[in-house]
Amino acid sequence: DRKLTFIAGPCQLESREHGLEVSQQLREIADRLNVGLIYKTSYDKANRTSLSSARGMGLEASLPVFAEIREKSGLPVLTDVHTAEQAKLAAQAVDVIQIPAFLCRQTDLLIAAAETGKPVNVKKGQFLAPWDMKNVIAKVADAGNPNVMACERGASFGYNTLVSDMRSLPIMASFGAPVVFDATHSVQQPGGQGTTSGGQREFVPTLARAAVAVGVAAVFMETHPDPDNAPSDGPNMVPLSEFEALAARLLEFDALAKGL
Amino acid sequence: DRKLTFIAGPCQLESREHGLEVSQQLREIADRLNVGLIYKTSYDKANRTSLSSARGMGLEASLPVFAEIREKSGLPVLTDVHTAEQAKLAAQAVDVIQIPAFLCRQTDLLIAAAETGKPVNVKKGQFLAPWDMKNVIAKVADAGNPNVMACERGASFGYNTLVSDMRSLPIMASFGAPVVFDATHSVQQPGGQGTTSGGQREFVPTLARAAVAVGVAAVFMETHPDPDNAPSDGPNMVPLSEFEALAARLLEFDALAKGL
Amino acid sequence: DRKLTFIAGPCQLESREHGLEVSQQLREIADRLNVGLIYKTSYDKANRTSLSSARGMGLEASLPVFAEIREKSGLPVLTDVHTAEQAKLAAQAVDVIQIPAFLCRQTDLLIAAAETGKPVNVKKGQFLAPWDMKNVIAKVADAGNPNVMACERGASFGYNTLVSDMRSLPIMASFGAPVVFDATHSVQQPGGQGTTSGGQREFVPTLARAAVAVGVAAVFMETHPDPDNAPSDGPNMVPLSEFEALAARLLEFDALAKGL
Amino acid sequence: DRKLTFIAGPCQLESREHGLEVSQQLREIADRLNVGLIYKTSYDKANRTSLSSARGMGLEASLPVFAEIREKSGLPVLTDVHTAEQAKLAAQAVDVIQIPAFLCRQTDLLIAAAETGKPVNVKKGQFLAPWDMKNVIAKVADAGNPNVMACERGASFGYNTLVSDMRSLPIMASFGAPVVFDATHSVQQPGGQGTTSGGQREFVPTLARAAVAVGVAAVFMETHPDPDNAPSDGPNMVPLSEFEALAARLLEFDALAKGL
Repeated sequence: DRKLTFIAGPCQLESREHGLEVSQQLREIADRLNVGLIYKTSYDKANRTSLSSARGMGLEASLPVFAEIREKSGLPVLTDVHTAEQAKLAAQAVDVIQIPAFLCRQTDLLIAAAETGKPVNVKKGQFLAPWDMKNVIAKVADAGNPNVMACERGASFGYNTLVSDMRSLPIMASFGAPVVFDATHSVQQPGGQGTTSGGQREFVPTLARAAVAVGVAAVFMETHPDPDNAPSDGPNMVPLSEFEALAARLLEFDALAKGL
Repeated sequence: DRKLTFIAGPCQLESREHGLEVSQQLREIADRLNVGLIYKTSYDKANRTSLSSARGMGLEASLPVFAEIREKSGLPVLTDVHTAEQAKLAAQAVDVIQIPAFLCRQTDLLIAAAETGKPVNVKKGQFLAPWDMKNVIAKVADAGNPNVMACERGASFGYNTLVSDMRSLPIMASFGAPVVFDATHSVQQPGGQGTTSGGQREFVPTLARAAVAVGVAAVFMETHPDPDNAPSDGPNMVPLSEFEALAARLLEFDALAKGL
Repeated sequence: DRKLTFIAGPCQLESREHGLEVSQQLREIADRLNVGLIYKTSYDKANRTSLSSARGMGLEASLPVFAEIREKSGLPVLTDVHTAEQAKLAAQAVDVIQIPAFLCRQTDLLIAAAETGKPVNVKKGQFLAPWDMKNVIAKVADAGNPNVMACERGASFGYNTLVSDMRSLPIMASFGAPVVFDATHSVQQPGGQGTTSGGQREFVPTLARAAVAVGVAAVFMETHPDPDNAPSDGPNMVPLSEFEALAARLLEFDALAKGL
Repeated sequence: DRKLTFIAGPCQLESREHGLEVSQQLREIADRLNVGLIYKTSYDKANRTSLSSARGMGLEASLPVFAEIREKSGLPVLTDVHTAEQAKLAAQAVDVIQIPAFLCRQTDLLIAAAETGKPVNVKKGQFLAPWDMKNVIAKVADAGNPNVMACERGASFGYNTLVSDMRSLPIMASFGAPVVFDATHSVQQPGGQGTTSGGQREFVPTLARAAVAVGVAAVFMETHPDPDNAPSDGPNMVPLSEFEALAARLLEFDALAKGL
């Protein structure tokens, strides 16, 4: 078992400057904690609750910024893609391709992501059982790409609520894929604010700690210098000023869980 | 309140001959019952449980067959699309564009479907509350297309199980969209057979009758001459030989519900 | 299949006068509709959300009132019991013993109810699958009482929410017991108002109609002259002034469902 | 924050000898681990899935055995009660009164347990939200007994399945009650084996570790020398031979979580 990695960053790429600044700060935190960190950033929020929600800079405008973030911060970069075409394009500038939860069963998208040769992080759909991810992982692996991760981000639990079943972590690990716990979207309240989704930021440390104690390869945790004014996922992002302490605490549980 | 319409057909377009034959039989049933019927057919099952499951003929090969079915049977044709490009192409040969449940939040797809000018039937995601469909309907309508239908097809209920909340029918109707009840996928057991989804065909009449008594604009009900040998959704399709009697019975409840 | 019966009345026995008056009005409605009606009344709300909620008159004080209601209205009376001792006592004055949903697995209570020789209506626990009721029904029947009914009143669906799975009606009927649909508690929002439960009275007709169309032996539907001022279940009781029209409408669906 | 306590023992009191032997072994384990341990034992399984399941020795026959276990092992003893009368009787021989999950809303039972003056451990109903426990705790406290614990044992999640929401632990702790995590019944599959409940013993360490990392006052964990031949809860009890190692591991996480 290897030491925990973090997948972290603001939900959206808000601007070149914003991306460069946050990635630089996260790079410094990762150095201080001596831990692997993958910078998460999105060029498009393609499934916002309503049409009027901010969607981001778009793929074409974002690619050079992704490249610049990668170069200047020295961090690997992850982004999520929504079509087969985007997978190919994004792979030019990022290190990890992520498949959104709603799209985790779209075969063409999974194959296109696999064919980039980049590691693929597949979010488990809110409508899937942990064991259903076996077929999802196989779709990527059978397309020739064994570098596939399975990410828990909550299961539908009644209306506008998700629940994190910690049994899913060992179940998905048993399929041979590194398991990621998404502590940000697991505390989302989908649709819970009428035209946007709500969130319970206060439970990010609770669920992240539980998952790390069980044992995971990585924790996905969005962070932002000013979450309350972020264009998306504000209610469930961790303030950047609190990120380092929380990550350090999780590393203690990781070391205990893995005997490091 | 207008008389119930049926959306019916086999899950997949299996071949030109198969499509022509089944659509002809459904046309005759619709004539005998004096009821509107939209022929449902899919050119691609894009989100099968596993990579080895049959996916269908593909869009390009299917378009001329869709056109021929429409012309020969005289029935309007509905198909489901998975990308913005497919929406544009499919609109050349079909009368109704359908958005799959997993994709009901993908803004670009909804806008592309809206821009075809065709009526759009949006399946409610298994992960959505009924009231979340207000924003989904608005995405289509705000893109300039008021002809949008909302379709109930079950909500996630624990693992590998869906439940049909009949309250969703009046809730979605309150948003001004005609409401469709999908009696086929509501009895699906997602992922329930390991590498394919299972189903409970025996409960199709139960749920369809409940929905029609509550009051819906249309019932979506897949049917097949030989469901047990169909390439997909076999466990939840109604045998074609039983379709007419079931539809006739539902029309009795519809007449009572609407005072027709 | 026999014509639908109603189980109706206010949630609690509020006073002798209140009970006599409401039961008399329900008797007149039943006569006008030519339908069987069992008067439902509770002497104790033993599991209120909070300690300060009103609980009712208690068993001893209620027994003579139950007897008087039965005699004057000519309606059979149903009440719910919470201990084995109460079952024996209540049987002296009522015609049907009801087991609350939370208590549907308490073996001693089920046996005591069975041993009264009265028909027993067991509410399905919010935590039970429909097929779990097979063992519950058998507990009563194996104690020597074959007159046991199974009542659907919603299943837990996330927090503070219930959902009515219409498949439960034929599943429970397959165990040989008459099936009751409780349209009042199926629209309850347990704990949803902090120190009391909320409810969605507006969906009583929706769910009742769906259940009757599927086919049930009886509908349980609480009613009150002034629900908004009732001491319990106000948010989900039907105003008495609307009861007759709703019941009459349900009888139309019942006649169609059963070919009466 | 005080060091973790264990509540452990076999599901049922099978015989005097069995109880004395297991309690003695648990006492030795507790001494070696230098940890508090409360011996859990039941005199009656009052809500078994079916009538033919074994129920235990009964309260009267068990009371002297409980007293003997307490005296010989030196461990405090906990048992669960199902009626107000049983609460009074049991309090003569045990140190902690437990309220079963199905009965957590029965006001008379909670008050009777409170009035014994003994600490009361209330299992959260599978049908309750964490915040609903505020009123439950208040029922005991307002009856004059502030020594009330709240126990998480899983929430209904579809049919025959429970899910453990780790957010419930801090939510219930915020009401001022020590929080217990029941790792045995959280992995129960209610009704999952037809006439008995199934279980997933393999996930006991997973969920217990997650809960302890989040932070709890006690872990409830049934254990048995030969679970596969136990009369109840066999599928989810930890073999006694594995108990000490698991408990020791949990204490490491507890020490890290609480900075002990």
